[in-house]
Amino acid sequence: MTQDPLVIFTPSGKRGRFPVGTPVLTAARQLGVDLDSVCGGRGICSKCQITPSFGDFPKHGVTVSDGALSDWNKVEQRYDDKRGLKEGRRLGCQATVQSDVVIDVPPESQVHKQVVRKAASARVIEMDPATRLYYVEVAEPDMHVPSGDLERLQNALKDQWELDGISLPQALLPRLQTTLRKGDWKITVALHTSHLTGAHQIIDMWPGLTEDRIYGLAIDLGSTTIAAHLCDLRNGQVKASSGVMNPQIRFGEDLMSRVSYAMMNPGGDQEMTNAVRNAINGLTESIATEAGIRPFQILETVFVCNPVMHHLLLGIDPVELGQAPFALATSESMSIAARDLDLTVMNENAQVYVLPCIAGHVGADAAAVALSEEPDKSDDLALIVDVGTNAEILLGDTQGVLACSSPTGPAFEGAQIRSGQRAAPGAIEAIRIDPATKEPRFKVIGCEKWSDEDGFWDETAQTGITGICGSGIIEAVAEMRIAGLLDPSGLIGSAEQTGTPRCESEGRTNVYVIHDASAEDGPRITVSQGDIRAIQLAKSALYAGARLLMDVRGVDKVDRVVLAGAFGAHISPLHAMVLGMIPDVPQDKVQSAGNAAGTGARIALCNQAARRRIETLVREITKVETAIEPKFQEHFVAANAIPHATDPFPELAGEVTLPDVSFNTAGGDEGRGGRRRRRRG
Amino acid sequence: MTQDPLVIFTPSGKRGRFPVGTPVLTAARQLGVDLDSVCGGRGICSKCQITPSFGDFPKHGVTVSDGALSDWNKVEQRYDDKRGLKEGRRLGCQATVQSDVVIDVPPESQVHKQVVRKAASARVIEMDPATRLYYVEVAEPDMHVPSGDLERLQNALKDQWELDGISLPQALLPRLQTTLRKGDWKITVALHTSHLTGAHQIIDMWPGLTEDRIYGLAIDLGSTTIAAHLCDLRNGQVKASSGVMNPQIRFGEDLMSRVSYAMMNPGGDQEMTNAVRNAINGLTESIATEAGIRPFQILETVFVCNPVMHHLLLGIDPVELGQAPFALATSESMSIAARDLDLTVMNENAQVYVLPCIAGHVGADAAAVALSEEPDKSDDLALIVDVGTNAEILLGDTQGVLACSSPTGPAFEGAQIRSGQRAAPGAIEAIRIDPATKEPRFKVIGCEKWSDEDGFWDETAQTGITGICGSGIIEAVAEMRIAGLLDPSGLIGSAEQTGTPRCESEGRTNVYVIHDASAEDGPRITVSQGDIRAIQLAKSALYAGARLLMDVRGVDKVDRVVLAGAFGAHISPLHAMVLGMIPDVPQDKVQSAGNAAGTGARIALCNQAARRRIETLVREITKVETAIEPKFQEHFVAANAIPHATDPFPELAGEVTLPDVSFNTAGGDEGRGGRRRRRRG
Repeated sequence: MTQDPLVIFTPSGKRGRFPVGTPVLTAARQLGVDLDSVCGGRGICSKCQITPSFGDFPKHGVTVSDGALSDWNKVEQRYDDKRGLKEGRRLGCQATVQSDVVIDVPPESQVHKQVVRKAASARVIEMDPATRLYYVEVAEPDMHVPSGDLERLQNALKDQWELDGISLPQALLPRLQTTLRKGDWKITVALHTSHLTGAHQIIDMWPGLTEDRIYGLAIDLGSTTIAAHLCDLRNGQVKASSGVMNPQIRFGEDLMSRVSYAMMNPGGDQEMTNAVRNAINGLTESIATEAGIRPFQILETVFVCNPVMHHLLLGIDPVELGQAPFALATSESMSIAARDLDLTVMNENAQVYVLPCIAGHVGADAAAVALSEEPDKSDDLALIVDVGTNAEILLGDTQGVLACSSPTGPAFEGAQIRSGQRAAPGAIEAIRIDPATKEPRFKVIGCEKWSDEDGFWDETAQTGITGICGSGIIEAVAEMRIAGLLDPSGLIGSAEQTGTPRCESEGRTNVYVIHDASAEDGPRITVSQGDIRAIQLAKSALYAGARLLMDVRGVDKVDRVVLAGAFGAHISPLHAMVLGMIPDVPQDKVQSAGNAAGTGARIALCNQAARRRIETLVREITKVETAIEPKFQEHFVAANAIPHATDPFPELAGEVTLPDVSFNTAGGDEGRGGRRRRRRG
Repeated sequence: MTQDPLVIFTPSGKRGRFPVGTPVLTAARQLGVDLDSVCGGRGICSKCQITPSFGDFPKHGVTVSDGALSDWNKVEQRYDDKRGLKEGRRLGCQATVQSDVVIDVPPESQVHKQVVRKAASARVIEMDPATRLYYVEVAEPDMHVPSGDLERLQNALKDQWELDGISLPQALLPRLQTTLRKGDWKITVALHTSHLTGAHQIIDMWPGLTEDRIYGLAIDLGSTTIAAHLCDLRNGQVKASSGVMNPQIRFGEDLMSRVSYAMMNPGGDQEMTNAVRNAINGLTESIATEAGIRPFQILETVFVCNPVMHHLLLGIDPVELGQAPFALATSESMSIAARDLDLTVMNENAQVYVLPCIAGHVGADAAAVALSEEPDKSDDLALIVDVGTNAEILLGDTQGVLACSSPTGPAFEGAQIRSGQRAAPGAIEAIRIDPATKEPRFKVIGCEKWSDEDGFWDETAQTGITGICGSGIIEAVAEMRIAGLLDPSGLIGSAEQTGTPRCESEGRTNVYVIHDASAEDGPRITVSQGDIRAIQLAKSALYAGARLLMDVRGVDKVDRVVLAGAFGAHISPLHAMVLGMIPDVPQDKVQSAGNAAGTGARIALCNQAARRRIETLVREITKVETAIEPKFQEHFVAANAIPHATDPFPELAGEVTLPDVSFNTAGGDEGRGGRRRRRRG
């Protein structure tokens, strides 16, 4: 029997043998090689580009023949025709291993460490944590009245703290006798109290009066980013905030890609579960190091996440969430031992609390936003949108709260955008276009200056200008509309129509060139007609979801809008309204809630009553399923134009002028778009 | 750096490298080699005899030099002088590894599979098990009223069975959705109900209405034997009974040897914990095979055990139980997940219930005896003794129950007896000595005939007559007394004094030869003066414990005696009274309760109310600590004679005659013994 071919990846050096016919992407995943993929291996995202090397590699001990990978296939040809593949590149999901091969993963195909923009919002939280320290003095054993050390400890907690119903986990029992004797019958225990039953469980214990502090983690487990706040459980103070990329990105960038990965690959759900749990363990380790504490001082963790992340964290195949009726395995909150989730870096007896899910598409992250933003306590009608790969939308006031989610797709996060990228140094995050000259100026992540300010180019020399992130693309589209480069239907004008050479013809449509460093072999950053369409689809979905909730509530306006989510914190309200992402409200009625889901997680970590509160609220929320509401489709189609059908738009008067332009191109795009147009003076 | 010496054991073939100076017994333990040890490596039991081999072993790839083991030491010399070591034999606890060596473990040094004499007693148990099956029909998911599958299952159990407060363990959550769909929304769940809180936990589930039965294990975890009954949880029927040796025997035969092993060897407690848990896993596997069921059908297990076994099962260092004030880590009952005890062969969510301990020396096994024998419901005053390596003693009636334990030592189990052995085929279990001829006849385990019956020698040819077990030695001593071979102080007469050549002189004392096959290279089975003393010590301890409880209760007689324990079932009441093991009662007032601890375990397995009952009773029992009661010592000394000081002894009249003999030997033993002597006509 001959051996399976050897696959060696560079620059990582990871290697393994795989059967003939194994896709390179599959090999990379199994070896844990950092190879990006957005679509879950479906051949549509092109993020998994790799470069095979041929010839002798004495260092690796292999010779790579010309036929080491399968022949160039139709999917690759189609991609190359459409978007162009660099010389020598292959798509990792299409090319399969035929014999020993050395494969290079170019930098742009690697999943980079994310800049976590989810800082902890300043928020005073009333402290009533589930986990607290109690110091007691325990009676010594008496041969004449025999009783167990545990029973005497329980009696001490009852007598000295009026605490009843205390249990000790099996793992701690072996340490009890030595701890009591070492502390001369004085002991400090960390007790976790169930907010449902009031039962207490000992999480850890120390001889005498401990000097150690105890901590909790509030984790916002997003599709793209896992963000954690390490909180002192005594006072709620945030000691460190940190985040990592969700490594499940390898299996598909958006939620449905991951669900389909699980459907198509037996055991795929378990792969994703293991990946995310390992990442959380790594994050636990690094955040503890950052804060200068030991991981076992972390006694409790709260998770908020969307339903697919929720299921994958809990080890549940998310397949039911990919098809009607979108049944959750469980919707109520969960209280679990961390070790049952293989979260073994934190204290071995740490407890995990997962907020309840609202519905099959509206998760515990939306519940956390509700806990943080409290629409149920609002006197005016608040629309709260948590913008991410999916948008979670809450509408409510003291009379009631409604919720839905809307499949905005990843465009708002810079994915499926030609020059799009995730929020990382070098990404354009803000842009302005001069309505007269049509010239752009912009800011990139990692530099405080605008591109027309002195020193900008020096300061960005190292990162370069690498692409455009979510907030950047929204501003770009809105600014293009304001500058008259787009008509209300979203069509980009030609150089002739717009009077700027930055609008270049590309086949039957035009593109707008923001930055071109191609002469120096650098990137050429453009906004294409396809990008405009992707943003239009995303914003229409968001708007349609909000409108649907307003229909169900029976209103046609809201009093205020709250933009939540890491990304929401970076959206300019002005540009969001120009785009028609959100219903019209006075500009001062648009607030950013920052990372509201993360704040909600911190509240649940620090306050037991908040757990009961959100569990009750979630049961009372009116759930609206966008997938089955015909009106959602109507709103979605109607919202396609920029601006959308609402008219007039007085709040923007004096701030921006939306020109009445109309482009006529060969593409015939002009037939689609807004049904009414707006005139401004 | 040179490698550590290689140690190869035969016949097992197990091998490993160990540092120079490692005792052979330690190497055997670490490799899991079947090498007996009674004393825990203290050089006093001689059970760990091994034979080193020297020369070339091409098969094993080693050459063993003469100095492969350390030199013969003083301990070995002393043992050889006293009892004789066969040519070539060494003591495994004394000889240490010096270089590569091949070591043979002779058959008599191997721990043999125990004949489990702990059959299930016939007993009708009222069924009210903690774990039951429930079949329900669950509502299908509805997009318009989103809720989790778990929540709909919980609702179904509430609506259809009035069951509330149901939780699903993390490990089952991933299976819930597929199980519900496979059964078309019909499902059978096994629910475990806490007898304390009434909360329910799902242990397992099956699509539709299951055909599978569910089972529970009742395990009596003894120092020597682990005995299990597999019960059908529907009707309590015992499907199989099985047992294995407790592999902790390797670390010391009696409890205090194991405690001292834990004290002297860091990590020794964990070694013993692992050994016993592995044995329980093996027993679970084999009992399931025997009953023709799959191990995952075992959903619940109840344990009864003495405090040291209790702690070692739970992974707690038993060191505190070896010294005053004998503090238990925990005394109350325990409800634990089986997996937290590494009991992974049974169902992964199986629950374990451990009965409460009564005191530091009176364990959950004594509680189980109380549950089975119900002294608290007895109108007459019952003395219940569970005879084993330790004797647990209960005295009580409806007015109250007292308990203590007494350190009888292993003599009653055939250990520390010259020809003693465990109950196994070939062991003498019963004996009669003709008072006229002084000739013995006996029965051995594995043969129904007495030695003077036709066919006995043919039927025992295979096993041989290998030694004398616990019940055998008690009968032997009592019969020797009845036959006039012993005086009341326990002194064995000489051939001259007794008139039989079976009494042989051995130094300053005499021995009685029961069976001598030494001419055919077989064993020579004798009862030595030392054996008589060991039995006297054991019976005095038992009797003194019983008397102490009677003192505390303020009585000088009891109405009835119950002999419990596997061994208790085989003791002849007549001989027990002749020996003075138990207080005098009419012979028809001595009952055998069989394996009362095992029965108590089965009751707790099948009946939740019984768990509450025993927990309450244990709290109410008056605990008496023999170690600190001066009266215990007084009773102990006074009980040394055979018969003891109580006189007259009318119950035995007509049955046996205890002759008034007096031996005068060079040993000067005559000064000790009973203070009063008894005359019989």
